[in-house]
Amino acid sequence: MTAPQPRRAAERKADTLAKLMAPAADAWVATAGERAHLVPLSIAWVDGRIVIALEARSVTARNLSASGTARLALGGTRDVVLADTTLVATHEVTHAPPDLADAYAAQSDWDPRADAAGYVFLVLRPDRVQAWTEVHELAGRTIMRSGEWVV
Amino acid sequence: MTAPQPRRAAERKADTLAKLMAPAADAWVATAGERAHLVPLSIAWVDGRIVIALEARSVTARNLSASGTARLALGGTRDVVLADTTLVATHEVTHAPPDLADAYAAQSDWDPRADAAGYVFLVLRPDRVQAWTEVHELAGRTIMRSGEWVV
Repeated sequence: MTAPQPRRAAERKADTLAKLMAPAADAWVATAGERAHLVPLSIAWVDGRIVIALEARSVTARNLSASGTARLALGGTRDVVLADTTLVATHEVTHAPPDLADAYAAQSDWDPRADAAGYVFLVLRPDRVQAWTEVHELAGRTIMRSGEWVV
Repeated sequence: MTAPQPRRAAERKADTLAKLMAPAADAWVATAGERAHLVPLSIAWVDGRIVIALEARSVTARNLSASGTARLALGGTRDVVLADTTLVATHEVTHAPPDLADAYAAQSDWDPRADAAGYVFLVLRPDRVQAWTEVHELAGRTIMRSGEWVV
């Protein structure tokens, strides 16, 4: 058996962007309140930000409003993208910038404007992104630091 | 188009147990510290408990020691199992009950006893379990409450 070759940073970045930009992409969204919360949510990748849409009264939205941070996972458990993010904007769905709402509806498989009442768009800025498959790729897994891609 | 039929509770329970007992099963493990943490870890299902093995100094182990709780996701984002769990036992890998360590090694694709130093088994008791695929299965998604299966 040949040992698998770890991907270089440029390849990991390309694979990560493909996951972020995929039609109907979902992420596992972890937030901290008194306990950890974790739910799957549809995402859109808009101008270097991850956009999610959810009920303002949901645990995830309340945790994000209070703490300002979330950790997101995309991909499978053996083809991982993890993003530590900061909440940079909140828009009620009915008053969101049209470009943002259009971009979300175009990538996602639903348009929150159809549900409207009580939903918000949360705009998350990735600060650190890690990408790895299995143990042989743990080294070199950090491909964004302090909001800047390393390649 | 026919509307998809939601699974009954018994079927959701069976599907959930299949995920928990699958060879080389992984879970996304969310824990709360100052921020939310989230990592993929191999699990074993042993006597109604979820067992994970990890470095005692890892963020996840430290968060679990401090808070006593974790929220785990198994399956895909559109075939979800979510388990709210409580830490009920911690064993250094080298001093773990042999039955527990053997069961973990048998289901997982690695034996933490080979790495040994610094690793612990954490035994998590599920308190609440939810299982759903997509929107049509949100109703009826809670299949365990207060540690008891609803069916």
